[in-house]
Amino acid sequence: MNKEASPIFKNMLAIGVGLIGGSVCLSARKRGLVRHVLGFSRRLETTHEALRLGLVDECITGPGDFNLRNVDAVVLSIPVQQYRKVLMDFLPVLPASCLIFDAGSTKTDVQAVVDELDLQFPGLRSRFVGVHPIAGGEKQGPSAASPDLFVDRNCIVCASDAVSEGTVAKVESFWNAMGARLSRMNPADHDDMFGAVSHLPHFLAFAYVAALLDTPNGERFMLEGGAGFRDFTRIAASSPEMWADIFQNNATAMLRSLSAFESTIADLRHAIEQGNRSEIEKTLTRASVFRKNWTQA
Amino acid sequence: MNKEASPIFKNMLAIGVGLIGGSVCLSARKRGLVRHVLGFSRRLETTHEALRLGLVDECITGPGDFNLRNVDAVVLSIPVQQYRKVLMDFLPVLPASCLIFDAGSTKTDVQAVVDELDLQFPGLRSRFVGVHPIAGGEKQGPSAASPDLFVDRNCIVCASDAVSEGTVAKVESFWNAMGARLSRMNPADHDDMFGAVSHLPHFLAFAYVAALLDTPNGERFMLEGGAGFRDFTRIAASSPEMWADIFQNNATAMLRSLSAFESTIADLRHAIEQGNRSEIEKTLTRASVFRKNWTQA
Repeated sequence: MNKEASPIFKNMLAIGVGLIGGSVCLSARKRGLVRHVLGFSRRLETTHEALRLGLVDECITGPGDFNLRNVDAVVLSIPVQQYRKVLMDFLPVLPASCLIFDAGSTKTDVQAVVDELDLQFPGLRSRFVGVHPIAGGEKQGPSAASPDLFVDRNCIVCASDAVSEGTVAKVESFWNAMGARLSRMNPADHDDMFGAVSHLPHFLAFAYVAALLDTPNGERFMLEGGAGFRDFTRIAASSPEMWADIFQNNATAMLRSLSAFESTIADLRHAIEQGNRSEIEKTLTRASVFRKNWTQA
Repeated sequence: MNKEASPIFKNMLAIGVGLIGGSVCLSARKRGLVRHVLGFSRRLETTHEALRLGLVDECITGPGDFNLRNVDAVVLSIPVQQYRKVLMDFLPVLPASCLIFDAGSTKTDVQAVVDELDLQFPGLRSRFVGVHPIAGGEKQGPSAASPDLFVDRNCIVCASDAVSEGTVAKVESFWNAMGARLSRMNPADHDDMFGAVSHLPHFLAFAYVAALLDTPNGERFMLEGGAGFRDFTRIAASSPEMWADIFQNNATAMLRSLSAFESTIADLRHAIEQGNRSEIEKTLTRASVFRKNWTQA
């Protein structure tokens, strides 16, 4: 591990050491951004796997661990619906000064949990920064972690007014040093955007595969799927637990986006049924022209 | 060009010399499967581009061309709705013995055109073989053609009872020599299958991008799309004309598949709105488990 750069954090606790959490650990250690990394997972096998794979320096079994009193940064990379319980468990034993940030895909819900817990843990709002690295994939677990997962990836930072500029900048410098390209948004705008361009496609891909599994011969048909099928459905292999959380926690924005989509498919179906060729081509052409010119930011 | 193998066809006419038609020409010439290839496109620039790129030996400007009297095989790689006109134009001047096959994505409609034209061109049914290579992509035109596009790709052959086994076998040997893996189906089963695993995903991808283009900020949102968005929407960049044909020509099977999908998204939306976690996870898990284990045939 490169120990030459001055570390941004001395003792980081990674809660969740799967694809994202494990990649934060690996990326930070490789670049000398942390001196020591503690890992925790609710599943003991996962924690041990992270240790064996060299993602973390040490693993802890829970909030009772002695080492927690020196932690100066916590990264949460767990399904969003576990945040409340995990924070309630760990906050009493973590130093009141430690920074906390996450890597989750929804932001309004997370800020609401933090705001609520701030009553019980005063000051929490001023040291929590929401982070959403646009990286990941359908592979899961510590073995999928990579030290370069965040290189050249966009990364959205959502911090409330209670967080000082210095604190936001410190978290940003950490992600920036791992290669991410940062931008700031407020949680509602973030959730609108990702409800439309990430959560809805996942919802549709899961639903499409599930619908075919319920169709006579659908399973056999899917075995003949080509490259189009392969790419369209790739995200349907994602974690059901993580995505059930996201669909529930960003339901308002995602279902609004789904309604717009349903209205477009109703129009397109109608055009096909009516043999309205110019209407069909108009819709397909708009989509095709846009997508041909689209490039990943 | 490899001239050592004994060619399967002496003079092949490629009607349509874009991605698919151009790849048939390149693949066949590279492997010595044809002695001479004539190319035709309704757009003169496309024909000239195919000639310049070395896809064809010679190009013709229409059915009036002198060279057509020696053609022993015709490959149609044009939007399906042009088949009737093109066949009506060319059949009067092509030898009554020449084999005709296509490379289109729908088959019931094509067989219907052939059956109907058989009244006017007796024997046509006995020398037409429907072929659907499961290959392609969103890139279009002669410049996208590749000599190995069909290698290890599945390829469905639909021949009516009127076609002799020897004729089907000859067409199959041609595609097999280009590297394709062949199987036979009847047109209705083919269209059910591809309505579900190819046409519906294309329909949904086009509709998804079009819906976002109609949403406030949707275009800006899409610029932030990550790898999931990229792969889910890749097929939305496909040819509007070709896909409008497919949606119209396989409307019955595709819209039946769309109805099943709509019913699944309605159930999943309801489960999210009701906070029915076990129902959400059940659907996502079935899809995820299937897709994780799926591999391209």
